[in-house]
Amino acid sequence: MESGRGETGPGWQRPGALLLDLSGVLYDGSTVIAGAREAVERAQDSALQVRFVTNTSQKTRASLLAQLRAMDFAVQESQLFTAVDAARQWLSQRDLRPYCLVHRAIASEFADFDQHDPNAVFIADAAEGFTYHTLNRAFQLCMRGAPLLGIGTNRYFKADDQLLMDAGAFIRAVEFAADVEATIIGKPDRAFFQQALASAGVAPQQAVMVGDDVHGDVEGALNAGMRACLVRSGKYRKGDENRVEGDFRLVDSVVEAVQWVLAQAD
Amino acid sequence: MESGRGETGPGWQRPGALLLDLSGVLYDGSTVIAGAREAVERAQDSALQVRFVTNTSQKTRASLLAQLRAMDFAVQESQLFTAVDAARQWLSQRDLRPYCLVHRAIASEFADFDQHDPNAVFIADAAEGFTYHTLNRAFQLCMRGAPLLGIGTNRYFKADDQLLMDAGAFIRAVEFAADVEATIIGKPDRAFFQQALASAGVAPQQAVMVGDDVHGDVEGALNAGMRACLVRSGKYRKGDENRVEGDFRLVDSVVEAVQWVLAQAD
Repeated sequence: MESGRGETGPGWQRPGALLLDLSGVLYDGSTVIAGAREAVERAQDSALQVRFVTNTSQKTRASLLAQLRAMDFAVQESQLFTAVDAARQWLSQRDLRPYCLVHRAIASEFADFDQHDPNAVFIADAAEGFTYHTLNRAFQLCMRGAPLLGIGTNRYFKADDQLLMDAGAFIRAVEFAADVEATIIGKPDRAFFQQALASAGVAPQQAVMVGDDVHGDVEGALNAGMRACLVRSGKYRKGDENRVEGDFRLVDSVVEAVQWVLAQAD
Repeated sequence: MESGRGETGPGWQRPGALLLDLSGVLYDGSTVIAGAREAVERAQDSALQVRFVTNTSQKTRASLLAQLRAMDFAVQESQLFTAVDAARQWLSQRDLRPYCLVHRAIASEFADFDQHDPNAVFIADAAEGFTYHTLNRAFQLCMRGAPLLGIGTNRYFKADDQLLMDAGAFIRAVEFAADVEATIIGKPDRAFFQQALASAGVAPQQAVMVGDDVHGDVEGALNAGMRACLVRSGKYRKGDENRVEGDFRLVDSVVEAVQWVLAQAD
C-alpha cells in the first residue's frame, strides 16, 4: 500500500501545505512520537506551509499551545486550527445561546455566551460530562427545534492506552433520538479544512493531511480534495486503511509522512 | 387520514389477532388512558387473539404483570411478550456471558448469566445506568469483537410528562463508535412480532398492531406484513404519521383502534 499510492491523482499539484493532526500523530498521551519533533522542524524549515488541525476539545487553545511547546514542538500560534475555535465562531456569528455539553476544562472558552434559556445545543468531547441527565437535556432542546452543533464525527480516541468514545458517538445518539441532523464543525467538515488552507494560501490540490483517524483525517481530507497520509501510530488499528475508499498513503509515522511530502514538494 | 386507510391492503385478511403496545397505549405513566380498560375487555371478549408486546426494559415481567393487574387490565400471563424475555432467550441460546447495560430494576432477570469476563454486550434502557464509564466498557468490548445485542430501536419514551432518550439512542452511540451493527431484539424486529403471532396462531396478514411509536410499532408492524394503528396518545407528537411511509391508520386512542379492528373482524 505504501508504494504507488497517493503520488498522483486527479489535478494534484506539488505540495505547498502540510496539515498535521496532533494527538496520535505528534504525541500519544504524554509521549512524543519518535522523531516527530524533528519531522515538524524539517517541515517548518522547508518551503511548506505547516498547519496543525485538531478536533481535540478537552483542552483550551492556550493549554494546547502550552503543551506543544512543553514538548518542544515548533508551532506558531497562527498555525493552530481547533474545532473548538471554529465552533465558538459559528455560535457567535448566529448570536445563539448554546447549551454546552463540553469538557469542564474548556467550559471557560464558552463563558462569554449567554447560556440561560438555551436555543442551541453544542456537543464536544464532554467525557464524564456525558450523563443520562445532560444528554436528555440536549435531546429535549433539539426536540423543541434547537439546532445541534457537534465537534467532529470522531468515533473514539486513545488516552492512557485505552480507547474511549469520542464526541461523534454522543452526537449520533442525540441525532437519532431527536431525529435531527447535526451541523458538524471540525474534521471531517470541508469548511474546517478550508479555513486552514485559506490561511496557508494554497488550494486543496496542493495540500496533504496527516492523521491517525481514517475517517476524520483521511476521508475528510480526500473529500475536501486534498491528499492524505494515514499514520500507523496513535489510535490506528490494523485494517483501518480498508475502512475508507480512495487513494491515500499508509505510513509508519509522521516521520515517514513528512519525508514523503518533502520528496513530493521538491 | 382516518378514513380509507388501513382497511384493505395486499393480501390482508380479516383480523384474527390484536397486538397492543403497553405504555402510551394502555396507560401514560400511572394514568390509565380513558376507556382503555374497557377496550381491552371488549377485545378479550371477542374472537380476537389479544397479545401485549412491549420493549419496556425498566420493569421485570412479574412487575409489568402486577402493574397491569393493579390497573385492572384483563391480561393473561401467556399473552405478554417482552423484549427483555426475548433477549434473555437469545443470549441463553448462544451461551454468552453478557455485559448488561440494563436498568437496575431488571438486573435480577440476568442474574443467572455468568457476567464475569463478558464476551457479549447487551444494551437495554439503563436510564441513569448510561454513564461515560459504562458506555465505554460496552464500546471497548465491541471493539474486541463481542456481539452487541440491543433492545429495540426506540428513540425516546415519555415519563412524568417528559420525553427521555430510550435505549435505541445509546445502542446507536456504541454502534457508531465501534463501527459495528447491533442485533436488535424486540420491536421493530420481525422475529419478535412473529413470536407473538405464532402464539396466537395467525398469519401477519390477519393481525393488527396498535402503538404510539411510529417507528417501533407502526413501521415495524408494516415491515412484518401486519396492519397498524398509530394512536394519538402517549409519546405521539403531531406529524409523527408523516415520518413513516405506508398504509396505516391514525386514531385518537386504543378505544378507536379496538372499535375499528372489531368492525373489520366482524
